[in-house]
Amino acid sequence: MSPRSVTAHALGYVVGVDFGTLSGRAVVVRVADGAVVGSAVHEYAHGVMDERLAASGERLPPDWALQVPGDYVDVLRHAVPEAVSAAGIAADEVIGIGTDFTACTVLPTLEDGTPLCELAELANRPHAYVKLWKHHAAQRHADRINQLAHERGEPWISRYGGRISSEWEFAKGLQLLEEDPEVYARTDRWVEAADWIVWQLTGTYVRNACATGYKAIYQDGHYPSEEFLAALHPGFTDFVSRKLAGPIADLGTRAGILTAAAAELTGLPEGIAVCAGNVDAHVTAPAAGAVEPGQLVAIMGTSTCHVVSSEVLTEVPGICGVVHGGIVAGLWGYEAGQSGVGDIFAWFTERNTPPAYVDEARARGISVHDLLTEKAALQPVGGHGLVALDWHSGNRSLLVDHELSGLVVGLTLATRPEDVYRALLEATAFGARAIIDALRDGGVPVTELVVAGGLVKNRFLMQLYSDVTRLPISIVASTHAPAVGSAIHAAVAAGAYPDVRDAAAAMGRRDVAVYQPDEKRATAYDALYAQYLALHDHFGRGGSDVMHELRRIRREAEAR
Amino acid sequence: MSPRSVTAHALGYVVGVDFGTLSGRAVVVRVADGAVVGSAVHEYAHGVMDERLAASGERLPPDWALQVPGDYVDVLRHAVPEAVSAAGIAADEVIGIGTDFTACTVLPTLEDGTPLCELAELANRPHAYVKLWKHHAAQRHADRINQLAHERGEPWISRYGGRISSEWEFAKGLQLLEEDPEVYARTDRWVEAADWIVWQLTGTYVRNACATGYKAIYQDGHYPSEEFLAALHPGFTDFVSRKLAGPIADLGTRAGILTAAAAELTGLPEGIAVCAGNVDAHVTAPAAGAVEPGQLVAIMGTSTCHVVSSEVLTEVPGICGVVHGGIVAGLWGYEAGQSGVGDIFAWFTERNTPPAYVDEARARGISVHDLLTEKAALQPVGGHGLVALDWHSGNRSLLVDHELSGLVVGLTLATRPEDVYRALLEATAFGARAIIDALRDGGVPVTELVVAGGLVKNRFLMQLYSDVTRLPISIVASTHAPAVGSAIHAAVAAGAYPDVRDAAAAMGRRDVAVYQPDEKRATAYDALYAQYLALHDHFGRGGSDVMHELRRIRREAEAR
Repeated sequence: MSPRSVTAHALGYVVGVDFGTLSGRAVVVRVADGAVVGSAVHEYAHGVMDERLAASGERLPPDWALQVPGDYVDVLRHAVPEAVSAAGIAADEVIGIGTDFTACTVLPTLEDGTPLCELAELANRPHAYVKLWKHHAAQRHADRINQLAHERGEPWISRYGGRISSEWEFAKGLQLLEEDPEVYARTDRWVEAADWIVWQLTGTYVRNACATGYKAIYQDGHYPSEEFLAALHPGFTDFVSRKLAGPIADLGTRAGILTAAAAELTGLPEGIAVCAGNVDAHVTAPAAGAVEPGQLVAIMGTSTCHVVSSEVLTEVPGICGVVHGGIVAGLWGYEAGQSGVGDIFAWFTERNTPPAYVDEARARGISVHDLLTEKAALQPVGGHGLVALDWHSGNRSLLVDHELSGLVVGLTLATRPEDVYRALLEATAFGARAIIDALRDGGVPVTELVVAGGLVKNRFLMQLYSDVTRLPISIVASTHAPAVGSAIHAAVAAGAYPDVRDAAAAMGRRDVAVYQPDEKRATAYDALYAQYLALHDHFGRGGSDVMHELRRIRREAEAR
Repeated sequence: MSPRSVTAHALGYVVGVDFGTLSGRAVVVRVADGAVVGSAVHEYAHGVMDERLAASGERLPPDWALQVPGDYVDVLRHAVPEAVSAAGIAADEVIGIGTDFTACTVLPTLEDGTPLCELAELANRPHAYVKLWKHHAAQRHADRINQLAHERGEPWISRYGGRISSEWEFAKGLQLLEEDPEVYARTDRWVEAADWIVWQLTGTYVRNACATGYKAIYQDGHYPSEEFLAALHPGFTDFVSRKLAGPIADLGTRAGILTAAAAELTGLPEGIAVCAGNVDAHVTAPAAGAVEPGQLVAIMGTSTCHVVSSEVLTEVPGICGVVHGGIVAGLWGYEAGQSGVGDIFAWFTERNTPPAYVDEARARGISVHDLLTEKAALQPVGGHGLVALDWHSGNRSLLVDHELSGLVVGLTLATRPEDVYRALLEATAFGARAIIDALRDGGVPVTELVVAGGLVKNRFLMQLYSDVTRLPISIVASTHAPAVGSAIHAAVAAGAYPDVRDAAAAMGRRDVAVYQPDEKRATAYDALYAQYLALHDHFGRGGSDVMHELRRIRREAEAR
């Protein structure tokens, strides 16, 4: 062992747990240098309930997405001890645990944190369950919140790009009140899953500054006012004072210590530091060692979340949120998002690819994605004559409208699957460029694009993003990144580093500037991007209401 | 035998030959009642050359489509005697022959009708071949013709809905002049294939009134002026006087008699009546017994052609053409078209349908079209949340622009293949409705939709058209319809009937009002149609130039 390793070992280990959409992942990380020494994954038994409620078999309306909180506890029960075991370390070498979660994923609980869906009399009530981030059935509630905020000139609305999302706490809470007032009345606390899981570890309820700022409209020390809430619905007046109450902790601070029960559950030592909760995207920035201004971290998976810190506060239209200390304490954290990315590619691959392609991929032992990418890469920029809008899951940034939808234009009888596939890849890159341009126009510099998530393995896609954005792209190859980010926060909570920026510098990792833009291709993409923007503004900014009308027509058709 | 049959037999038989895109079909028809007693099909050996020139292997540019005239002669040589043989009649019972052709399908010939591509020294020159109707590489030439016509206030331009098509004689002729002036200089005659095949039968060149009016801008006794042609290109000045010269014959008149050589070729009696040429769509109207005002005949196959006669002359924007005697002598014939219909469905089925669907169709022994139709039919109107533009082959009516392209909007991650398939079916129905509405708005009544062509067998599609257009739909089930229409014209040319209207009444057939509109569905489709129209006008009438820009970008990409 080198002297450094000895020192490293002496500092001990931290556990990070990342709660994703379908599973949770635990990692054991060396405090000294961020090395991952063990990991384990546990899948949620109930996955995502978006068609039927498991308990009753009841059919759910369109755009719903629920989860079962017990599935999260199972991750602590199984994945954490398995990761420690895989690491080959003694449990008592672990000095802290940190967690991150999808957001806004939110559930109604009793005063003591018991989820309402665990009460026998409410087990068949869909509204008693966790509403997953991608539960999109509160759009009309979000619309009313936005409209009222603008009418009343609420100061906070501009911190969210002028529109709050249907995914967030207030829209989902208002939906709960109006659609199931009985469950709403039983709700003592309306809790981010990120904070609920910490509650299970520490026995006390502490809200984290990240989710509170981005998802619960907490700005400059205040939530929205009672007057505002009353104007939305009289029954909503005390939503903040009754159901959101709780202390707020900065990121990287200790929310509490591990209880005996949680120690029993996880196999970790009782009394170690438990870090305040966090959000999966935001926690990836320190894992990449990329928390400084100018470093835009994009977590590209089924969807993409973009986070970047800045020393300045500016209000960028269409950005999901700006929160002081939202990514790291002391800086303004900006968040943006693309609600559909990898899942659009998957949808295309699964539902739109003909047998000859699937057979060819199988015969060559490659995925259909790889085959389509390979074929798509053969053509010059613009050769397919297509442009698409990447709104199959709606648009988070810059339009914050989940009722928008996907579009492909330029189709001819000569259009091949790889042409449309490439147009979809490009559309997501154009969506990313629109966000980056908006940040810059708003005064937030972006000088490096740091990409994490499952899509980093598509080299053609990464080069495409570099060409379209004219930015060098650094890569976080590890699928453990969010869990490592949580572990970094645990190290700070345990006192091993003074703050997250220092911890990120020591423990975070990325491959710098793996992709560089090609100016010739970049210029060619500019011409396609101009067409994308024209469609973006026409369909997304009021030129045409076709997409909303189609939603309305569909709802009416289903109601008939 | 009944007395009627005896009489019928006594009137004899006529032969009709329909020259399609990939093959020619001959039928033997009883003059008395239009019964088809024999038929035969012969496929063109060279099919459509749209990628390479067969003679040289040379790669053709995008949007080209050529044919070999010898293939047409082979239809006379093989299909005609086979049809007579299949009919079990004696050849000398045949009293006349009529033909129809795709249009505008046009070729350069010597003074004696020899195709230039049959000259050894020109066999490797793409421009020496037949340009098939769907040769779409003369769009820029058409654009210039249109622009100049409007600048000069040419009176004829409004007879063609304000825009002539890139498919027609002048656009294709100008392309020939500018791209291969040597072949242009060798061209003594620029001949519609419809008239060239009659020339092979009679030995003399006679232009038919239908193609001359619709495809060669012949109105009120005149072609476009020399001043107009000179302004397009100095070398084009004598295009009409040198290359289009020839007598023009009304439909149903005798163009000549069968020569000894043609009698030898076909096995028919020398000296029988040969009718003036005709166009496949127009000739279908008498075959359906639907030549009266108000009866819109739609021939729905890979593309759709609409024809309707009227007692009034009115200039309908976007209609392909209005020609006096263009369908039957004495009435104004209106033609409109949708450049992609069945071929859009085929494109979707072949390139966009995943293995599970193809496997299911195979297991059930049905076509993928039938499977998609069956699944698509299960949902309520508007249930898919989609609307498409059916412009994958451009738009003939009402926009006359082959550089437009297909579009689908409303896509989500829940969108299934049958949803898009249905949206495409609907888009073509909306395109048909736009044409019908334009005719009515222009003063041409439409009271019955008479459908012929391969798509009549899709009952869901037929009901959809009835609901969308709120018209009863009559069906011409026979695939022989155009050939029968030609035979009806032959009967008139042979003197068996005084005119085509009388012959059509005696010999034409359709099933009347098989489909009736359902008012509830019609109302639901109105909402989708409103969205279609909004997109139609935005992308097709100058609101957005995205489709043209994408073509430009593609051309530049291919040129790099």
